[in-house]
Amino acid sequence: MELVPGNSLITKTPEEGRALAVLLARHSIHAIQPDVEVLKAGRLKYSKEPDSLIAAAQVVALEFATIAAANNYWH
Amino acid sequence: MELVPGNSLITKTPEEGRALAVLLARHSIHAIQPDVEVLKAGRLKYSKEPDSLIAAAQVVALEFATIAAANNYWH
Amino acid sequence: MELVPGNSLITKTPEEGRALAVLLARHSIHAIQPDVEVLKAGRLKYSKEPDSLIAAAQVVALEFATIAAANNYWH
Amino acid sequence: MELVPGNSLITKTPEEGRALAVLLARHSIHAIQPDVEVLKAGRLKYSKEPDSLIAAAQVVALEFATIAAANNYWH
Amino acid sequence: MELVPGNSLITKTPEEGRALAVLLARHSIHAIQPDVEVLKAGRLKYSKEPDSLIAAAQVVALEFATIAAANNYWH
Amino acid sequence: MELVPGNSLITKTPEEGRALAVLLARHSIHAIQPDVEVLKAGRLKYSKEPDSLIAAAQVVALEFATIAAANNYWH
Repeated sequence: MELVPGNSLITKTPEEGRALAVLLARHSIHAIQPDVEVLKAGRLKYSKEPDSLIAAAQVVALEFATIAAANNYWH
Repeated sequence: MELVPGNSLITKTPEEGRALAVLLARHSIHAIQPDVEVLKAGRLKYSKEPDSLIAAAQVVALEFATIAAANNYWH
Repeated sequence: MELVPGNSLITKTPEEGRALAVLLARHSIHAIQPDVEVLKAGRLKYSKEPDSLIAAAQVVALEFATIAAANNYWH
Repeated sequence: MELVPGNSLITKTPEEGRALAVLLARHSIHAIQPDVEVLKAGRLKYSKEPDSLIAAAQVVALEFATIAAANNYWH
Repeated sequence: MELVPGNSLITKTPEEGRALAVLLARHSIHAIQPDVEVLKAGRLKYSKEPDSLIAAAQVVALEFATIAAANNYWH
Repeated sequence: MELVPGNSLITKTPEEGRALAVLLARHSIHAIQPDVEVLKAGRLKYSKEPDSLIAAAQVVALEFATIAAANNYWH
């Protein structure tokens, strides 16, 4: 399965970079747990737990740091 | 929905950069859980839990690291 | 409320940079939970829990990494 | 046992870099717990826990940051 | 109280840099919880918990990353 | 006790760098808890817990990031 959509870290804008960060995180999780039904059930659960949401936001922050550096911060 | 307010990581000052870091973290969480009522209920809960507050502060620190680098630390 | 005391990441010494890292972390938490009484109650709790102290120390380490880079490591 | 497949961080594409990040994380865990049966049992468990999946995704993000820097972000 | 022993991140060797990383982490925790008796009681507890030890090791790794960069990796 | 085996971050290959990352993490933990019997008991416990293994893998990833940078990613 695809891990990096478009096979590139380069995006036109920070907004697109951020969307890519979210996708990278999701694809990681999908690669570890390919069963979509299990993922859906888990999502119902964790998306109501503040601590889980904060942990997910942390992964997005880490992925975004790499993408932002790859794009020289869109200067 | 918008992930990067203003679609830029560049801010005039560290203070504005820090405010952007807080917003990035919040928008991540909003993107994962779009239901505002669920978010409000979660906020009531986690904002009284020291461990949750520390975890949220960690996400802000990570987002800020990227923003600070993007702004060459406002030299 | 103020997020970055002095609105600058530049400090004269590592010691002052470290103190700023502690303040940045505290101001993050204060921005999320503005009620000082709730924060005081939480502090009583978490400051006796080793795991919470370690998590807080991690946030300080992350903030300090950014401040140290901003100051070119005080060379 | 081998920790870095191919003994190199250089990959042709971001996709291959991401796959390497996943492998690095898995080989770390395998090095700490060499018993494959224990790992299989653990996988059944954690791959249904959203918090565990998020934590695993965080490790992949960290490994990928290093690999992406090593490849100069595939510019 | 002192947060950065010697008020410098520069050390002669990686070994001394690592020792400084451990001290930085300890001083953070001491700054948050100044009561030595509480810290000693906490240490008895967390130093027997694998998860706490791993979390503490993570803080040391983060502090060391900053110190290593400050010393240009002792090249 | 020794924290950085060989007192250097420089290794010949990524594989050796990875092995050093594992050692750095272990030596941190050993420095915090010098009693080998306590460590052995803890290892029995955490090495069967997926969440603990993931947390340990995260520390290895962080140490490796520093070592990889120190070696200019073995280019």
